[in-house]
Amino acid sequence: MDVIPYLAAISALAGLGVAYFYFKAVEKESPGNERMVFLMTEIQKGAKAFLQKEYQWVSIFAVGMAILVGAVIAPLAALTYLLGAMLSATAGYAGMTVATMANARTTEAAKEGPAKALPVAFRGGAVMGFCVAGLALLGLMVTYIVFVKLLEVDDAFEIVTAYGLGASTIALFSRVGGGIYTKAADVGADLVGKVEAGIPEDDPRNPATIADNVGDNVGDVAGMGADLFESYAGSIIAPISLVAFAGAIGAEQAGDTGVVELLVFPMFVAFIGMVGSIIGSFLVKGGDSTDSKSLSKALHMGTNVAMGITVAGVLAGSFWIFADAPEDKPWGLAVSVIGGLIVGWALGKTAEYYTSDHFKPVKDIAQQTETGPATTVLKGISIGMVSVFASVGLILVGIAVAYWGGQQTLGDDTTLGGLYGIAVAAIGMLATTGVVVSVDAYGPIADNAGGIAEMAELDPSVREVTDALDSLGNTTAAIAKGFAVGSAALTALALFKSFEFAVSTASNGETVLNLNIGEIDVFIGLFIGAALPFLFAALTIDAVGRAAAKMIEEVRRQFREIPGLREGQEGVIPDSARCVAISTEASLKEMIIPGALAVVVPLVIGFISVDALGGLLAGALVTGFALAIFMANAGGAWDNAKKYIETGQHGGKGSDSHKAAVVGDTVGDPFKDTSGPAMNILLKVMTIVSLVFASAFV
Amino acid sequence: MDVIPYLAAISALAGLGVAYFYFKAVEKESPGNERMVFLMTEIQKGAKAFLQKEYQWVSIFAVGMAILVGAVIAPLAALTYLLGAMLSATAGYAGMTVATMANARTTEAAKEGPAKALPVAFRGGAVMGFCVAGLALLGLMVTYIVFVKLLEVDDAFEIVTAYGLGASTIALFSRVGGGIYTKAADVGADLVGKVEAGIPEDDPRNPATIADNVGDNVGDVAGMGADLFESYAGSIIAPISLVAFAGAIGAEQAGDTGVVELLVFPMFVAFIGMVGSIIGSFLVKGGDSTDSKSLSKALHMGTNVAMGITVAGVLAGSFWIFADAPEDKPWGLAVSVIGGLIVGWALGKTAEYYTSDHFKPVKDIAQQTETGPATTVLKGISIGMVSVFASVGLILVGIAVAYWGGQQTLGDDTTLGGLYGIAVAAIGMLATTGVVVSVDAYGPIADNAGGIAEMAELDPSVREVTDALDSLGNTTAAIAKGFAVGSAALTALALFKSFEFAVSTASNGETVLNLNIGEIDVFIGLFIGAALPFLFAALTIDAVGRAAAKMIEEVRRQFREIPGLREGQEGVIPDSARCVAISTEASLKEMIIPGALAVVVPLVIGFISVDALGGLLAGALVTGFALAIFMANAGGAWDNAKKYIETGQHGGKGSDSHKAAVVGDTVGDPFKDTSGPAMNILLKVMTIVSLVFASAFV
Repeated sequence: MDVIPYLAAISALAGLGVAYFYFKAVEKESPGNERMVFLMTEIQKGAKAFLQKEYQWVSIFAVGMAILVGAVIAPLAALTYLLGAMLSATAGYAGMTVATMANARTTEAAKEGPAKALPVAFRGGAVMGFCVAGLALLGLMVTYIVFVKLLEVDDAFEIVTAYGLGASTIALFSRVGGGIYTKAADVGADLVGKVEAGIPEDDPRNPATIADNVGDNVGDVAGMGADLFESYAGSIIAPISLVAFAGAIGAEQAGDTGVVELLVFPMFVAFIGMVGSIIGSFLVKGGDSTDSKSLSKALHMGTNVAMGITVAGVLAGSFWIFADAPEDKPWGLAVSVIGGLIVGWALGKTAEYYTSDHFKPVKDIAQQTETGPATTVLKGISIGMVSVFASVGLILVGIAVAYWGGQQTLGDDTTLGGLYGIAVAAIGMLATTGVVVSVDAYGPIADNAGGIAEMAELDPSVREVTDALDSLGNTTAAIAKGFAVGSAALTALALFKSFEFAVSTASNGETVLNLNIGEIDVFIGLFIGAALPFLFAALTIDAVGRAAAKMIEEVRRQFREIPGLREGQEGVIPDSARCVAISTEASLKEMIIPGALAVVVPLVIGFISVDALGGLLAGALVTGFALAIFMANAGGAWDNAKKYIETGQHGGKGSDSHKAAVVGDTVGDPFKDTSGPAMNILLKVMTIVSLVFASAFV
Repeated sequence: MDVIPYLAAISALAGLGVAYFYFKAVEKESPGNERMVFLMTEIQKGAKAFLQKEYQWVSIFAVGMAILVGAVIAPLAALTYLLGAMLSATAGYAGMTVATMANARTTEAAKEGPAKALPVAFRGGAVMGFCVAGLALLGLMVTYIVFVKLLEVDDAFEIVTAYGLGASTIALFSRVGGGIYTKAADVGADLVGKVEAGIPEDDPRNPATIADNVGDNVGDVAGMGADLFESYAGSIIAPISLVAFAGAIGAEQAGDTGVVELLVFPMFVAFIGMVGSIIGSFLVKGGDSTDSKSLSKALHMGTNVAMGITVAGVLAGSFWIFADAPEDKPWGLAVSVIGGLIVGWALGKTAEYYTSDHFKPVKDIAQQTETGPATTVLKGISIGMVSVFASVGLILVGIAVAYWGGQQTLGDDTTLGGLYGIAVAAIGMLATTGVVVSVDAYGPIADNAGGIAEMAELDPSVREVTDALDSLGNTTAAIAKGFAVGSAALTALALFKSFEFAVSTASNGETVLNLNIGEIDVFIGLFIGAALPFLFAALTIDAVGRAAAKMIEEVRRQFREIPGLREGQEGVIPDSARCVAISTEASLKEMIIPGALAVVVPLVIGFISVDALGGLLAGALVTGFALAIFMANAGGAWDNAKKYIETGQHGGKGSDSHKAAVVGDTVGDPFKDTSGPAMNILLKVMTIVSLVFASAFV
């Protein structure tokens, strides 16, 4: 059993090796002609400049937090906090660098057909995927092995948890900052370019086109990567801290049997998931397939195999690890993990149902475009809201199954057993992070490849290939989103329980958290918690609005002041760098308040009343989750309703229906790409901040 | 002290006398020429037809509920349940009948200027105001006197609470049904009339105009009246049931001192508020004022004097009633009541800040109309969301002050003292219901008067006068809304605590509700509770959409099939009755599912797990409150942004900005007039259902 942390660390190293292998594979592909190389370099420069600046800003915050963590918790916790933050930043930077190398190479390969281009884009994304999974798991395992197993220091588990807090910090700011950037650039490019100047998307004349493509990388690649880094690390930390803070053991007793199983089981799940991901990733091959169905199959093969291996491995592993389970039901926790996986999958399918144009909801929105933008917006809102109930229902099924599974293995009279089941269910969804993120990052690379094809004025057939590639990843991406959302709810719930235990443990049982909603301070906390996600959503929506306004102004200025630009005169090029700089500066400025809110609010409330903080976390979790689902699905539904109309339905492009659909899509942009995704991290950051500082509050 | 319930009952009778007096005063005014009488009769017929049908539908539901209540709780509870329902229905019917008599009479009086018309509209509204307050209080006092004081039956307090449930049932269906009706007619009239046919608002050619005016009455008069009836009754029942179920007393001990004070204090507040309302109402006189400022002063005079009397009376009364208070701080509960009043006022002012065109938020929305409907919608959403945080903050201040005040009088080591303080704070806001509802109902009467002026093709100067009258009531209406919202939160919280106590009392202390959010079933309940308001909002938004679609179809049909209608040919009149019938049928059909949801869900969950039900109520309360504020304020802000632009800002009527503002307004219509207001009742209905059935659950 003792070998499992080392196995997990080795699998993480193997994951990093795979990432290097894919990097080399991408590098050796040709990036195309001079113009394409120029565009690729511009996008890469812009994306790197953004990340560098973002990390500078965040590092000030992170250093401050590290000092606080070091002073209040333990000096070594400051170290692991910074480690978590730096590894997340490294993964984001490395992955995004390769993604911005892979775009033009995908375009070039697309000249030879989709079967050639698919592996290039996938491998570009896989560098991000395996950097995220490899670094997150490696850092966590090293932290665990060093502080818990080798040094056996005091506060070892607080120190491990601080690693997660570091990752959360980066994730929060990356999601918020990247989300604002990508939407500001998108809106700026669309509104002035498409609507006012009447030029097509990704047109080289549009000064915001480069910024728009940069946005895809900093938002959908780097932001998403940081998000999954923290989700993945958090899902492993949650069950470990739950066990550690439950009072069953202190750090010094970590060698005892019975508890060791519970500590290593999450690592085993991560290990087997990594192995599955690596094997799965090598199965993604374009082959000689040409139709979209076989291409789609090729892409999904990786994820499906990875999950199959994980399921089989977890089942086998549970019989090995829990062979001596008190209840003689070693399979119980495997049920929790696999249940989590299935619920995550079902959440993704639910999201797909509400947001894909194959089903009724999006068709209903498209229908409502016929009576104008108001009914379009209303229908999207009601669809997003209905989807909340469906998704919450699934999550609750997942919670119930995972709880039951945990009780089977650990005895059904123990509360911890059920909670532990919930905690490991979240890893079920995220064990295959390596391959899931690969497919997720594949999307924006294919998208960028299309942008480059357009800007380099290549043959339209190339754009057709990249468009086909782009649409392939959607199903898998939907399932990945389901995993991210579902695991966020389960992880936050497990961390919340850990917080409750930590308060009791830290005070040697003197302070027992009173979380009775009937108590006035808990109720007040609950109320504040329910209101916070609304404030956070409002702040991020407004931030996108302000950043976009600056972008719009700049694009208008360039069209006005640069002679011949709008007309596409030979040799006249827009000042793209300035747009990139403006979007960078605006989004970083706007990121500060919502980001700081997530960290400061729990600290302030926690020092006033820990009970109120408990209420706040619960209120924010349930309301924030509902709001996140609402925003993500409403946004996705509007987006696809617009695309559906663009296929010629309800009058097609240029019709009044299309105009109404564009309004819905624009309303949905910050919903689905800024506020919604950031909300999930908000919940976890608040909970993990509370957990890390639990001992300081009491 | 024993005299107080009788005093309250007598003041309620006096209130009913005042209502009759105002009815006579309105009746003797002239309703104008033949055309005006015809229009008035049409509106009245439509409104009455709607209410009658609504009551038919609801009575089926109410009888079913009564049987359930009678079987499960106590046969006498079925009686009081039906009494509450019938009195609420009677108040709504009587008040609305007079309101639909007062509209044409206000128009006629407006010919002689605003000073003549103002009292007519106010008195028309005052019939509703005093019917609501008088019947609600009278019924409740009779119930209390008969069952608690005279008969001293078992389950006396469940029987009293059932009265509140009856009122809630009517309120829920009236708000939902009326809200759907009014918006379906409004959207139908606007979209086809104004946008498609290009004819002005309230044009006699528009077949939906009568339905639109009917909608104002069934939604803003009858729906609002039923809402306030249940809020008012609920706010008095909440502290009584809190005391009764706290285990401090059973029904048989109601004669004990110490507890009697707590039972009669709420009735005293209601009594003094009724006295204040009656006096205040007589001070509303047009006099010879002609400018809008002095008219506004005349209208507000009533409310201000009523509140002044209430504040002074409560303060004096607290020294009388709590002269023997254990802590020698008899003023504590007066602080709670007055604190509630101030917070309610501040909530109204906050709503005004976010929704009036005098302040930044609405101006910001107007600014955003320049970049189209999408940015308009986004800005409204973010403003609505920000307003949630401000309003929740105020409510929490109110809760804290009321809690503190309660502890001063009742001893600061008692939990009950603080909770009781919270419960009576809600009555603080609603004690002046008589006059507050009068002013609230005044608005739609003035609005209707304008519609009649338009349809009867009177001189434009008459319409100017009615428009001026219409705009006068807005400030007072905003404060009334603040009262309704704030009291909903406090009442629901108090009822929630009563539910907790009731579970324990009903099982003789064997079942103590475990409301620890850390427990899995409570947490699952919390999660469902947070998702429910989203589902409810989605259902009501969609209901409006479907009902409006039927209306649109009918109006289009009439313009198409009735020759000469659109051209305004002499003698050609639209088939208004058919529009009224369609709107009636559609809205009643749509009311069923969301209405039933509120009653069925707590029953189902309660019989499965009372702990989960506790979690559900808390989750629904905090999330529903946030969502209600968001929807009400976003909707109000869009509405006024549109009106602001219509004054000539940002290009004025017909400009692109105006078109964008109309989109925002239409999105906001079901937000502010259907889903938002119904949400507050949803929360209370669920809580009161749980409270009444608490003994059955355990």
